[in-house]
Amino acid sequence: MTHNVAILGASGYTGAELVRLIATHPDLRIAALTGDRKAGMSMAEVFPFLRHLDLPDLCKIEDVDFAGIDLAFCALPHATSQAVIAALPRDLKVVDLSADFRLRDPSAYEKWYGKPHSATDLQDHAVYGLTEFYRPEISAARLVAGTGCNAATGQYALRPLIEAGVIDLDRIIIDLKAGVSGAGRSLKENLLHAELSEGTHAYSAGGKHRHLGEFDQEFSRLAGRPVHVQFTPHLLPMNRGILATVYVDGDPHQVHGTLAAAYAAEPFLKVLPFGALPSTRDIRGSNFVHIGVTGDRMPGRAVVVAVLDNLTKGSSGQAIQNANLMLGVDETAGLMMAPVFP
Amino acid sequence: MTHNVAILGASGYTGAELVRLIATHPDLRIAALTGDRKAGMSMAEVFPFLRHLDLPDLCKIEDVDFAGIDLAFCALPHATSQAVIAALPRDLKVVDLSADFRLRDPSAYEKWYGKPHSATDLQDHAVYGLTEFYRPEISAARLVAGTGCNAATGQYALRPLIEAGVIDLDRIIIDLKAGVSGAGRSLKENLLHAELSEGTHAYSAGGKHRHLGEFDQEFSRLAGRPVHVQFTPHLLPMNRGILATVYVDGDPHQVHGTLAAAYAAEPFLKVLPFGALPSTRDIRGSNFVHIGVTGDRMPGRAVVVAVLDNLTKGSSGQAIQNANLMLGVDETAGLMMAPVFP
Amino acid sequence: MTHNVAILGASGYTGAELVRLIATHPDLRIAALTGDRKAGMSMAEVFPFLRHLDLPDLCKIEDVDFAGIDLAFCALPHATSQAVIAALPRDLKVVDLSADFRLRDPSAYEKWYGKPHSATDLQDHAVYGLTEFYRPEISAARLVAGTGCNAATGQYALRPLIEAGVIDLDRIIIDLKAGVSGAGRSLKENLLHAELSEGTHAYSAGGKHRHLGEFDQEFSRLAGRPVHVQFTPHLLPMNRGILATVYVDGDPHQVHGTLAAAYAAEPFLKVLPFGALPSTRDIRGSNFVHIGVTGDRMPGRAVVVAVLDNLTKGSSGQAIQNANLMLGVDETAGLMMAPVFP
Amino acid sequence: MTHNVAILGASGYTGAELVRLIATHPDLRIAALTGDRKAGMSMAEVFPFLRHLDLPDLCKIEDVDFAGIDLAFCALPHATSQAVIAALPRDLKVVDLSADFRLRDPSAYEKWYGKPHSATDLQDHAVYGLTEFYRPEISAARLVAGTGCNAATGQYALRPLIEAGVIDLDRIIIDLKAGVSGAGRSLKENLLHAELSEGTHAYSAGGKHRHLGEFDQEFSRLAGRPVHVQFTPHLLPMNRGILATVYVDGDPHQVHGTLAAAYAAEPFLKVLPFGALPSTRDIRGSNFVHIGVTGDRMPGRAVVVAVLDNLTKGSSGQAIQNANLMLGVDETAGLMMAPVFP
Repeated sequence: MTHNVAILGASGYTGAELVRLIATHPDLRIAALTGDRKAGMSMAEVFPFLRHLDLPDLCKIEDVDFAGIDLAFCALPHATSQAVIAALPRDLKVVDLSADFRLRDPSAYEKWYGKPHSATDLQDHAVYGLTEFYRPEISAARLVAGTGCNAATGQYALRPLIEAGVIDLDRIIIDLKAGVSGAGRSLKENLLHAELSEGTHAYSAGGKHRHLGEFDQEFSRLAGRPVHVQFTPHLLPMNRGILATVYVDGDPHQVHGTLAAAYAAEPFLKVLPFGALPSTRDIRGSNFVHIGVTGDRMPGRAVVVAVLDNLTKGSSGQAIQNANLMLGVDETAGLMMAPVFP
Repeated sequence: MTHNVAILGASGYTGAELVRLIATHPDLRIAALTGDRKAGMSMAEVFPFLRHLDLPDLCKIEDVDFAGIDLAFCALPHATSQAVIAALPRDLKVVDLSADFRLRDPSAYEKWYGKPHSATDLQDHAVYGLTEFYRPEISAARLVAGTGCNAATGQYALRPLIEAGVIDLDRIIIDLKAGVSGAGRSLKENLLHAELSEGTHAYSAGGKHRHLGEFDQEFSRLAGRPVHVQFTPHLLPMNRGILATVYVDGDPHQVHGTLAAAYAAEPFLKVLPFGALPSTRDIRGSNFVHIGVTGDRMPGRAVVVAVLDNLTKGSSGQAIQNANLMLGVDETAGLMMAPVFP
Repeated sequence: MTHNVAILGASGYTGAELVRLIATHPDLRIAALTGDRKAGMSMAEVFPFLRHLDLPDLCKIEDVDFAGIDLAFCALPHATSQAVIAALPRDLKVVDLSADFRLRDPSAYEKWYGKPHSATDLQDHAVYGLTEFYRPEISAARLVAGTGCNAATGQYALRPLIEAGVIDLDRIIIDLKAGVSGAGRSLKENLLHAELSEGTHAYSAGGKHRHLGEFDQEFSRLAGRPVHVQFTPHLLPMNRGILATVYVDGDPHQVHGTLAAAYAAEPFLKVLPFGALPSTRDIRGSNFVHIGVTGDRMPGRAVVVAVLDNLTKGSSGQAIQNANLMLGVDETAGLMMAPVFP
Repeated sequence: MTHNVAILGASGYTGAELVRLIATHPDLRIAALTGDRKAGMSMAEVFPFLRHLDLPDLCKIEDVDFAGIDLAFCALPHATSQAVIAALPRDLKVVDLSADFRLRDPSAYEKWYGKPHSATDLQDHAVYGLTEFYRPEISAARLVAGTGCNAATGQYALRPLIEAGVIDLDRIIIDLKAGVSGAGRSLKENLLHAELSEGTHAYSAGGKHRHLGEFDQEFSRLAGRPVHVQFTPHLLPMNRGILATVYVDGDPHQVHGTLAAAYAAEPFLKVLPFGALPSTRDIRGSNFVHIGVTGDRMPGRAVVVAVLDNLTKGSSGQAIQNANLMLGVDETAGLMMAPVFP
């Protein structure tokens, strides 16, 4: 059975990635695409790589007829998203890719995003969309909040370890390397090819990155006590991909075994043999996560490295995986394409 | 109905690209993978990006049981290919991705490849695999020769123009820009990241590139007289993609109209509106070809720009498209994935 | 003797490149730096790579005291430049890096730049700054107009050939490949790393690029008759460097000999042995031009390939070379640094 | 006074970088260049970017007349270096860029490099070449051992902190991001552009990287007790540059103040204002080191980020800085060129 979907905010990278993935999805059909500033344009004009597809033109959100639509993906900027979703029909299923519904606690939202939430009633019902850990809730949800792409990567490396109690909760360091598409299609000098290529730097270091709000919420909930991690993201001269190098105090083999057991049945999460470490090249354009674990010459120290594609598993692929659950179709439908290498 | 295929030479880039594409192909199943130097290894070791697939290990060609296999893709180096194919069962369908069976004339082969052909009987039956122009022959063929990736790009820009007689056959210049994966997984200093990135240069200039043999063969056949083009390839700091800028003497609108009409019904060949020119970014990882035409301030001069992904439409995607025809399945099966952008 | 210079428009790439080069110039001293929108900031804030230098802060042009300044480099946008220069003290030597004074003919300026020139008196006196061909005029000039970077590359490949009459003037094609820094520090979607890296496309094709005005002016003057070339620039995923592939009708060895003889005594122009073709990697960050010539299997066709660094020899290095002549110091002073490879 | 130098092993990247830097050095003259496999070739053939220089051809080491040579740079592979240096005239000053003389203790050498040292007498006299910390010893030395490029980066971030006792010596983590030229001109699949670009991965993780030998030696010596750090290097898709993110337990402002004070008078070491973090883009092609420090939301945790160019300050620039000291010329001679950006 085909389900009609709308993509709100289809002129950005995550919107385009949704279209790319849905193009070969057996059960979804794109019924509406919106892009306020580009309303009236065809997707072929905005994203020529989608030229071969037969798609509706971009329109304004207020011009969408939601009557026949089963689910909306909301790929709008933070803050805009909460206002738009509050105005949608209340029986429409929604997968939100922004940060607006990731944090359950209104005060946490205000702390990390700098202003009060305007739709706290929705915030209360929203389900955190890290699929593998919230399947029943997502299946039953009306509104699912896509996770931060960095937050997802760190959680895949750490959740089973925190839950199993095999690492020291006070000594967790996440050193993260992120491709540039995570910053979106924003016009900033430091995202220009001339400035970004051939170099690297850290950003939002020192406990300031907003995804810390997600780490705090999820890890503390799992541990049943406050957990704070150190987190330093770096911007790399590559378009797709996140690699998180996670330093923990714990027995390396126990760490590996815990992750391998936790993910043994997962279709998208692959734990490598002990000592092998993953590369972002090997998941590019796909919905897979590769995780590796190694030890150190110092006993009791382990390094976990997790990689995923920020646009796929880190946002739009995750969104479709959640939509599949919400619509009752096969969770992996449309998501089994292999990575693109080289 | 599922068809069993073997991939001979699965440890190179075109072999890996075949696996990537077949992974989501509804009608093909990989029954054997060979890689002489890496025999005994799993594909996950050789290409970790294929880790999620359930694949046979690499073996030697002599260890393949061809009994249940319907078609073999041969992704071996030039010269090796002809020896291997000559030894295969004569009822096995073969799609060869090497240069060994592209030139029908043994003397042309010897001229461009520097030594006599060792399987001239097979060379005689082989069908040139530029799908859109040889459909009936490919459907009926036992052995199909994949085209050169540069040769394919130039031909998509030029064949309808030569056939329609709308350009001067003596003033054709193909200035080509190619990504590095076309050079294969060869260990050469000038293919190292440190040497190749951040720069460009011309190579095999001056009428020396081997794909000229294909241009000569095909264009002369179409024109019914000898046609020689000028051809200068350049290596670019990107992995996938070929862009051919083709300079012709002819009326630009007639040139555009001729191409648009010729390709109107083609599923993979897209002619842009007059004046719009394509980008390799918009076909990366896909089987699509984008073609644009513009004029010049000097009347009677036109520029045709064609782009394709050398690993997909330029080799492995083309190979599967041809295999689909040979096996009687839908020609586009497994090939409709959208490009990956950004 | 040290000469004081000002750089007007020091917050863009050509301004920063001027600072980089002057940092180790034995005879120049930076006395003032302007940047209207960034006035009050230090150069270390605007360009951290210049942090080690002791430089004046950025100020507004109107706050510069030109009394003790011998020469001003004007690295402002097109159109702004003519207004600013018209208001400078008339005894101040000026090297302009914009397009405003490249075309001598006011109607040609208006044709290519879309509006009338506002300082036609200055336009009349300005000397075209392609150093090697205008040395006496530059040495005596008050105002020198830096050339277009693409225009410079094409002229180095062609001027001696046109002057010597060894090629067909009606069949010249310049297929140019340019790095992205030539587009400046402008905030455009297609200059973002995510969009520009890993791909290539043609732009301003079809006789529309503004540097055609320079080609027309200079080549027609040399030939004593109108000369129009075909010119197609392409944007490449690299920051610095231009490679021009120039197709001409002429005897390849005569073409090579003419260029080699013309440039034999030039400190920055290097003609490679016949058949060898240059790479942009080999001139990056330097003031050198490498030129190669090869033939074709079709007699009477030659290919000339010229490379230079658009920010150095294509703009700021050329500007300093011209300033050296205007100030009476060694022409090569501050410009002999080797390219940076890899 | 001009000093004659020889470069042994001039066909690799560090050899070429030495030539690049010496090309504009006021006091050094290249008298001999060796490259065993490329003996007889000109440097213009091996490294076309050096075409403009008047250099001796490559020869074999045994063909060098060391009579008139004051100092030899030895840029040979590990293990080869110790044999070659042992055979050089004992009055010839030598700067070795290999790993052969970095570790003073023969058993440490054997542990990290897998075989016994063959020139333990020389090893005993060699001075560790981290210039800023061994100036008197280097000035008086006959043989100076260039440091590992990763080891240098980590030490610039940490030495003053260890010496001042302001951090916990048992909780030091160095997460390092390195450009590919550090791997040299070696023909390995994972260094090909097609495999390396557009992705990242960790390597030699888990306490296995050889530069740990240097960290152990130097940090333990400074602390007067054994110090072991955790060290995970990552390979990035860029050619030049190393960024070390160093996690320490200590007061962030004290950490910053200690580094700023220690390096206040250093010509090449620049400590940024507190909270500002450096980028590898800002030191590319130069001899500068930029260091930044920030805190964390958790009190008592600091992050130090240090960047340098592995080919310049990390090897060949350091080698020249040391040679300057050994020859009694200005320590900064030939090394003050600005970085190349963009």
